[in-house]
Amino acid sequence: MDIVEEIRSRQSDIDEMILGFLPGDEKLTATLTQAMRYSVTAGGKRIRPMLMQEVSGLFGEPCKALPYFMAAIEFIHTYSLVHDDLPAMDDDDYRRGKETTHKVYGEAMGVLCGDALLNYAFEVAATSVESETAESVAATNDGTENASNARIEALRAVKALGILAGKAGGRGMIGGQVIDIETEGKAIDMETVNAIHSMKTCALIEAAMMIGAVLGGADDAAVKLCEKAGYELGMAFQIRDDILDVEGDSEVMGKPVGSDEKNDKTTFVTLVGIESANRAVKEHSESAITIIRSLGGEGTFLERLMEYMIYRNK
Amino acid sequence: MDIVEEIRSRQSDIDEMILGFLPGDEKLTATLTQAMRYSVTAGGKRIRPMLMQEVSGLFGEPCKALPYFMAAIEFIHTYSLVHDDLPAMDDDDYRRGKETTHKVYGEAMGVLCGDALLNYAFEVAATSVESETAESVAATNDGTENASNARIEALRAVKALGILAGKAGGRGMIGGQVIDIETEGKAIDMETVNAIHSMKTCALIEAAMMIGAVLGGADDAAVKLCEKAGYELGMAFQIRDDILDVEGDSEVMGKPVGSDEKNDKTTFVTLVGIESANRAVKEHSESAITIIRSLGGEGTFLERLMEYMIYRNK
Repeated sequence: MDIVEEIRSRQSDIDEMILGFLPGDEKLTATLTQAMRYSVTAGGKRIRPMLMQEVSGLFGEPCKALPYFMAAIEFIHTYSLVHDDLPAMDDDDYRRGKETTHKVYGEAMGVLCGDALLNYAFEVAATSVESETAESVAATNDGTENASNARIEALRAVKALGILAGKAGGRGMIGGQVIDIETEGKAIDMETVNAIHSMKTCALIEAAMMIGAVLGGADDAAVKLCEKAGYELGMAFQIRDDILDVEGDSEVMGKPVGSDEKNDKTTFVTLVGIESANRAVKEHSESAITIIRSLGGEGTFLERLMEYMIYRNK
Repeated sequence: MDIVEEIRSRQSDIDEMILGFLPGDEKLTATLTQAMRYSVTAGGKRIRPMLMQEVSGLFGEPCKALPYFMAAIEFIHTYSLVHDDLPAMDDDDYRRGKETTHKVYGEAMGVLCGDALLNYAFEVAATSVESETAESVAATNDGTENASNARIEALRAVKALGILAGKAGGRGMIGGQVIDIETEGKAIDMETVNAIHSMKTCALIEAAMMIGAVLGGADDAAVKLCEKAGYELGMAFQIRDDILDVEGDSEVMGKPVGSDEKNDKTTFVTLVGIESANRAVKEHSESAITIIRSLGGEGTFLERLMEYMIYRNK
C-alpha cells in the first residue's frame, strides 16, 4: 500500500472511532449535537490522533485510554477551527470546501458548538480515567499483577489529561491564536513568527506525541523526546505550509495561492525567503525523524507519515 | 457575624485563593492573561466554590484537591458569562456595573479569553489530580496507611473531574444556553423553561455540591443526594431571580426591572404567576435544605448560605 492509501485507510478507522464518541441528539439540544457532528466530520485529516496512536505503538501494548484521548485531541483541534472561523476572529465562510459551522448554524451556535467540543474533549478524557480508575480500585484489592497494571494505566491517563490541557491552553494553542490575532496586519519579527508557530501549530502536535508516549508507557525522558519531536515536526509542517502558500497550486491547496502575501501577513517565508525556508523545513524534519528513529521508529508507518506531512504538496 | 458579613469574609478568602491560580503575564500573550484576570475579578459572588467548600466540610477533612476544584468551577462559571455577553449571544455591554470583557478587550479576545478560562479550569483540576497521584505512587510503595489515603484522594479528584466536565457541557450548562438562545423571542412551555433552568443554572450548582461531597469522601448515595440538593437549590434560586425581575427594585437588582417582560421572555413567573412562583421557590428550597440537614448540615453556615441565596433581595 502506498502512503496515501495507508493514511486514508487509517483515517477512515479513526473517523469511525471518533464518531462513536460523539453524543447523540436529545430533543431540546439537537442543533448543538448536529453542529458538533458537522464540525467534526468536515474533512479533517486526523493527523493528531494518528500521530498519538503511532507513537503509542512504539512503546507498548495498546492502552485502553488511547481511543478516548485520540477523540479528545481531535475534538480540541476541531473546536479551535470552529472558533477561528468566527466573524470576530478570521471570519471565514468556507473551510476545506465546506461552509464553516457558524455559516450553517449561525454565529451563536458557532460559539456554543466550539465551547461544547472543548468541554466534551475533557469529558471524554476524564471518562477514560474514571473507568480505568474504578477498575484499578477493584483490581488493587486482589493483589495480583493485573492490579498494579490497572493502577499504572490510571496514572498514565491522568498525566495525559494534564498534558492535553496544558498544550491546548493559554500557554499553548490558544496563546498562539492570541498572538496571531494581536499582530494581524503588523510587521512582526522572527521571534514572534516562531512563537505563533510554536504555540498555535506545534503545541497540539507535541501533545499528541507526548500523550501517545505516556499512554504507551514511555518514561519521562522518552516523553520529553516526543515533545521535542512534536515541536520539530510542527515547525517543519508549518513552514512548509507557508512555502506552499507562495508556490502551491491553488486547486491543490484548497485556498487561494499567495493569500498570506495578499493579506500582508508576515510569515517565515516573507522574512527569510524561500531558500532559507526550505532549508529550515529540512532541518526541522530531519531532527524530528532522528528522534523518532532513536525511539525505535525506523521504517515504521509513523516515520513515513511524518515525511508525508512535511513533503506533501497540499 | 451576620450572614452577609460572613459571606463577604469568605468571598474575600476565596477571591485571594482563586487569584493565586491565575497564570501570570508573559510578554506576547499578556492581553490574554489580563483579560482572564479582568473577567475573573469582575465581582462574582463565588457562590459555587463556596458551596463546594461547605459541602465538602460536611463529610470530612479538607482535601488537598479542594482549592483546585474551587478555582476550576469559578473559571468555568466566568467563561460562561464572558461568552454569554458576546455580541453573537446576549450582546451585553455591562455586567455587574462593569464593562464586559469583549467591550474592554475586543470581540476576538472575548472569544479567546472564554476559551482559555474553560481550558484552564481543566488544567488546574488535572494538576490537582496529577500531583495527588504522583504522591500516591510514591506513597503506595511504602505500604503505610498514608499510602491508601493518598490513593483514595487521587481517585476522588479524578471522579470530580468527570463530574465537572459533564455538568458544564452540552448535557449541562452549555445545553441550557443552547435552548435559551434557540427559543429566544418564542413562546415556550413549562417543560422548556424547566429544562433551561435545570441545565443553565442548576447543573453547575449540582457540580459544586457533588464535587464538594466527592472530595470530602462522601459515598455514592450521599453524592447523589448532593446532586438533588444542588438541583433544588438551583431551581429555587432561578425562580426567585425571575420573581425579582418583576418585583425588584432596579437599583438593588443592578439590571432594569421587568427586563424579561420587555424582552418578551417566557419565564416561570410569566407562565404561572407570582403566587405559584413563590410557592415553587418555597418547595424547592425546603427540599434542598431538608437534604442538607439529612447530611448533617443543620445549623451550619451552609444552611444559612442556601437560605440567603434564595431569600436575597437582589
